[in-house]
Amino acid sequence: MTDQQQTPRAVLFDIDGTLVDSNYAHVDAWVKAFRDVGHPVDAWRVHRSIGKDSALLVAGLVGDEVAAEIGDRVSGLHSEHYAEHLGDDPDLHVLAGATELLAELSRRGHQVVLATSAPEDELAVLRGLLDVEDALWAVTSSEDVETAKPDPGMVEVALEKAGVDASRAVMVGDATWDVEAASSAGVQGVGVLSGGFGAGELRDAGAVEVHEDVAALLAALDDSVLTR
Amino acid sequence: MTDQQQTPRAVLFDIDGTLVDSNYAHVDAWVKAFRDVGHPVDAWRVHRSIGKDSALLVAGLVGDEVAAEIGDRVSGLHSEHYAEHLGDDPDLHVLAGATELLAELSRRGHQVVLATSAPEDELAVLRGLLDVEDALWAVTSSEDVETAKPDPGMVEVALEKAGVDASRAVMVGDATWDVEAASSAGVQGVGVLSGGFGAGELRDAGAVEVHEDVAALLAALDDSVLTR
Repeated sequence: MTDQQQTPRAVLFDIDGTLVDSNYAHVDAWVKAFRDVGHPVDAWRVHRSIGKDSALLVAGLVGDEVAAEIGDRVSGLHSEHYAEHLGDDPDLHVLAGATELLAELSRRGHQVVLATSAPEDELAVLRGLLDVEDALWAVTSSEDVETAKPDPGMVEVALEKAGVDASRAVMVGDATWDVEAASSAGVQGVGVLSGGFGAGELRDAGAVEVHEDVAALLAALDDSVLTR
Repeated sequence: MTDQQQTPRAVLFDIDGTLVDSNYAHVDAWVKAFRDVGHPVDAWRVHRSIGKDSALLVAGLVGDEVAAEIGDRVSGLHSEHYAEHLGDDPDLHVLAGATELLAELSRRGHQVVLATSAPEDELAVLRGLLDVEDALWAVTSSEDVETAKPDPGMVEVALEKAGVDASRAVMVGDATWDVEAASSAGVQGVGVLSGGFGAGELRDAGAVEVHEDVAALLAALDDSVLTR
């Protein structure tokens, strides 16, 4: 009963793989980039690193020593290959329910924050695709923090922007890194399967709920931790 | 003790995502194909259908009615897009440990069977990449059965070719469909993560063991159900 007297929770959203179907384009771009520099990496290992800070992703996949040598080059090549998916006619689509969920949360008085570490140029394209500006309270980008997820810095910046305590926020994301970053900042994490991580992986990382995608989360909104 | 007197188990291998790093190329090709025909499908849903019979994959993703309309066209487009990954210089690589595991099993007297439903032309390229012909007891292909995994037909054909009872065989695969097909035929399934399915998903489908990849399975071979 007391819960109902509290203000609605702030809801922090990851974008890639959560609101936009872009994770597999990132996998494709990284696989090509690693191949270009002569250090091929298995696609599934790349996939499991998506959502992580780029520098951590590279070091985690090829080790610190090789990363020091190829890191900048492979990140640049990733951006080039990824840009092919983001051209004049992006081959990425907004995931079902994304626009509707953000609008509904905003309508109910939740502060909706995009908590991504995507670079400014990628973020601009993603926001263009999403077309949810009216529903947004705030947005964080790579400019706001030095190290992205799973470092909790991004989540902490998002909390500051929302002006709420960690206990009155929820993070929605598709990657174990989202959930881990949220947990480290004291925020409950809700997982979605639309980025290709498994439900078991997300729960093991600390997700308190797992939904197929944001459309399923919207359908279950009244029973979700988002509205408690 | 009695176990040690039995002949070594037959080991049935899936290829895509298990021995060759090809699942994400298949996801890419299907995503493009569905987009080409104006029925875009989320990449993660495609990913979770990889390893399944093509006709079942299409019907599962767009429904029977739309599948009846676009099925042949989208399958043809998938083959075209996938062929781009299989050109003169395939951008797919053999997963670490694949060649070594098959050679070691053959050396120990196991019957090694490739149990795939890949079409003959794809299979020829995959076998060329693998270069393990000397280690093989038999190979099944799409020619051998009408419906591929998760139908157990493919596993049953592989057992016939090996001339062993289901209880003396193990199936190694990356997809829940491999494990389900094996279980339906009474064969124990061993999962690998190299196709991008989660460990929890594979265990839920009935996998008795899950390893990161075939290199990890080779390293753990003496403790594995394969050698019991």
